Amino acid sequence: MGAYRHAHEIGPVCGRYHAAADLLCKRWSVSVVAVLIDHDPVRFNQLREAVPGITPKLLTERLRELEAAGIVERRVTASVPVLVEYRMTPKGLALRELVAALQTWADAWA
Amino acid sequence: MGAYRHAHEIGPVCGRYHAAADLLCKRWSVSVVAVLIDHDPVRFNQLREAVPGITPKLLTERLRELEAAGIVERRVTASVPVLVEYRMTPKGLALRELVAALQTWADAWA
Repeated sequence: MGAYRHAHEIGPVCGRYHAAADLLCKRWSVSVVAVLIDHDPVRFNQLREAVPGITPKLLTERLRELEAAGIVERRVTASVPVLVEYRMTPKGLALRELVAALQTWADAWA
Repeated sequence: MGAYRHAHEIGPVCGRYHAAADLLCKRWSVSVVAVLIDHDPVRFNQLREAVPGITPKLLTERLRELEAAGIVERRVTASVPVLVEYRMTPKGLALRELVAALQTWADAWA
């Protein structure tokens, strides 16, 4: 019988953790993050090809969320055709440990 | 100019990683996982209270997915009222490093 068996309440999950989980754990987000950590810079179509199953619409949405959160930086070069590239900010690169932990778990248990 | 600037293709994200991301990165999943790693066993209502914003419907769905994946174990005790508890399997407890990595990132950057 565990210590919590008769407890009526357990504390809420850490607010910062919960918010980070909400931001990062959307469909395909951490796969997009993994590609961006390993390749810099990356073009939209390269990202699309590297994340099986993602639609252009969903990739656009994920990139906008990550950009709004300061994780991804979008850079436009005025060439013909216009070159749009994505790369990690320091905040994004700090997700390296998270990606590594998920890879380790996947290798051991998937 | 990065090495990948003119590459037409980059390799796809690791299949095992991608599948693990797909399984775990659904709305509130990693918050449910965090609570289950810290508290064992946990009742449904305790989980619901510990994960702000989650609905009973979504919590049921997340727990079923985690159970089907062998991450969570559901235990029913034939008492009055029936006691239903959830706990991590070894595969679930192995997610401790992932949770720790997300907490560290959230503390540093959120």
